Amino acid sequence: MSTGRMEAFSDGVIAILITVMVLELPTPHGTTWSALHDALPVLLTYVLSFVYLGIYWNNHHHMLQATARVNGLILWANMHLLFWLSLIPFTTAWMGENNFAAVPAAAYGIVLLAAALAYFALQTTIIRDQGPGSLLAEAVGRDRKGKLSPFVYVLGIALSFVDARLAVAVYTGAALMWLIPDRRLERTIAAHAEASD
Amino acid sequence: MSTGRMEAFSDGVIAILITVMVLELPTPHGTTWSALHDALPVLLTYVLSFVYLGIYWNNHHHMLQATARVNGLILWANMHLLFWLSLIPFTTAWMGENNFAAVPAAAYGIVLLAAALAYFALQTTIIRDQGPGSLLAEAVGRDRKGKLSPFVYVLGIALSFVDARLAVAVYTGAALMWLIPDRRLERTIAAHAEASD
Amino acid sequence: MSTGRMEAFSDGVIAILITVMVLELPTPHGTTWSALHDALPVLLTYVLSFVYLGIYWNNHHHMLQATARVNGLILWANMHLLFWLSLIPFTTAWMGENNFAAVPAAAYGIVLLAAALAYFALQTTIIRDQGPGSLLAEAVGRDRKGKLSPFVYVLGIALSFVDARLAVAVYTGAALMWLIPDRRLERTIAAHAEASD
Amino acid sequence: MSTGRMEAFSDGVIAILITVMVLELPTPHGTTWSALHDALPVLLTYVLSFVYLGIYWNNHHHMLQATARVNGLILWANMHLLFWLSLIPFTTAWMGENNFAAVPAAAYGIVLLAAALAYFALQTTIIRDQGPGSLLAEAVGRDRKGKLSPFVYVLGIALSFVDARLAVAVYTGAALMWLIPDRRLERTIAAHAEASD
Repeated sequence: MSTGRMEAFSDGVIAILITVMVLELPTPHGTTWSALHDALPVLLTYVLSFVYLGIYWNNHHHMLQATARVNGLILWANMHLLFWLSLIPFTTAWMGENNFAAVPAAAYGIVLLAAALAYFALQTTIIRDQGPGSLLAEAVGRDRKGKLSPFVYVLGIALSFVDARLAVAVYTGAALMWLIPDRRLERTIAAHAEASD
Repeated sequence: MSTGRMEAFSDGVIAILITVMVLELPTPHGTTWSALHDALPVLLTYVLSFVYLGIYWNNHHHMLQATARVNGLILWANMHLLFWLSLIPFTTAWMGENNFAAVPAAAYGIVLLAAALAYFALQTTIIRDQGPGSLLAEAVGRDRKGKLSPFVYVLGIALSFVDARLAVAVYTGAALMWLIPDRRLERTIAAHAEASD
Repeated sequence: MSTGRMEAFSDGVIAILITVMVLELPTPHGTTWSALHDALPVLLTYVLSFVYLGIYWNNHHHMLQATARVNGLILWANMHLLFWLSLIPFTTAWMGENNFAAVPAAAYGIVLLAAALAYFALQTTIIRDQGPGSLLAEAVGRDRKGKLSPFVYVLGIALSFVDARLAVAVYTGAALMWLIPDRRLERTIAAHAEASD
Repeated sequence: MSTGRMEAFSDGVIAILITVMVLELPTPHGTTWSALHDALPVLLTYVLSFVYLGIYWNNHHHMLQATARVNGLILWANMHLLFWLSLIPFTTAWMGENNFAAVPAAAYGIVLLAAALAYFALQTTIIRDQGPGSLLAEAVGRDRKGKLSPFVYVLGIALSFVDARLAVAVYTGAALMWLIPDRRLERTIAAHAEASD
């Protein structure tokens, strides 16, 4: 079974998630700049979630480029990842509408944590299927970012109960860590493409 | 007419359904864990519906892999299936927001039943068009799960009026039955692919 | 310019329209069958709109199969059709929530009329570009249904002010007229495909 | 890395944005023409935003046709454009629901301005990657419209505080400027396609 339709389905779900969040943005009450200012926590949370979904789309894109085929187990590991990503608009709305209160900020981190673990599980499932000498296994390497992220989210969840702004700062830091381009996967795929020419 | 565009359209509709349900999740009232706890029936119903739509996407994917061409009748049988699937967010919201009350739980089962019958009708329409010796006819075989499911849903609908939690347990059981991978279709397609090499 | 991306974009928009309507379905108030009964006008309007969008997707699919290339004007004629189709969820909600009142029923018909004219304009734009001897020109033929439909919608709009249920009956009749398969386009394409073998 | 999946993802997001706006259209209160008349500012704003998103889709389509490959930076420049486009439904709802009040009209223009700058940045990033002799660099040429637009939006933003209807008139004018087909890009691509035959 080729990766085509799973890729298209995942793209569809992530594209929808990234855009339906905007439906949750409540129209500001009033027509002043201060009405827009009141909507700022919601808007900032939206930006953070937009970036996270963008990172997941990007990484998912790269991972599937290094994947040759899928089976039933991979399809469900992918569905499991999409499930946790689909909860991001829910926690985004809850955290944004409550000015970064403690429990919503922790819930936001728990969904990020679960999505990170689901991504790791999907990656492991694919590598197990394709073998340790596969392109993906080589490209992923020691996967330092992937192994570090869960601990960062756990830190953020704990900090929610000290000051939720600290938690949001930690989540933002983790997003920035992912935004710094990780050339390894791109280079390995490029090297492989040249070698096979 | 090839299956490409019907496949893409169905993927689009199912991807949208699976994600718009999250828009129906009401933001919890308050910022405590107990506020999240109150949202639990809605969240659990969401999980169940997510799994059902995932199963339909998966089975639809496999069915169309064994389908060579489509005609007008098949297009409409597919549209009919999508119609019933599109009502799942509606019954999900109704059942979730009412703590599994009797009538909403029965309505949830009725939509599942109608979707199952629509899937069966689509499968029959395709087999009739492609002939009894076709790949799909062979792969489907005696289709025990497909024939058993409607009776399970009828049982769930009846149990709604005894205790709606029993109905939800039955629907969950039916979903688990489908999650256990059915290797036959996958194997038949793989065998066929090898034979034609 | 090939038709691929315009086809994909149109499929996306129609798939989204057909599914977002379900978000407009208000969750029934209460947990009884009579609560569901009160939601009946909304549900029936949803069914009618679902069928109309299904018909448009189907016809659009066939039309583009007989289209070789697109230009800027065709892209905008297509966008114009999508605009009117995008108003269907709006008039669906208005008519459904008001028990088929006169003005909403007329507005529903006006959007159907505008969509029909936009479809006709798109078809004419494509035929003008591809020439009178083109496959599409031949397949469309005298286009009796396409020319009849606008008059049927005008009749429905007028009848809205007599009794809106008559208007809905007329709209339903027009949908049924389109559901009866029109083998001509399918046959012409098939004949052409055989001839070119 | 080919442009395929980035194209599909962008199409998906724009298709969803253009259609979710219709969900923001509030159902008119009452069943009279005057109820529809009250919804007119919202409907007109919807039309304007629909046209803008249509223009972006169209231009994006043409730009990627002249793009051979993408890299990580281009993916993020594209994501940045999609972010600003995703705020259009938000400012559309705010401006529409407040009868073109000053601050919402300015906010509408600010999002248009940011989207125009993001489009310009994406175009520059692609040209830098493909080289000054590339097809896109040649097709874009001096890009008068692209360089003029930001100043038009700034003018609109300023006029919001004089009379918001002037601002809306300026935004409408800018949209019309883009609707007038710009044959250069289309011609350059066509010429190039012929030359390579």
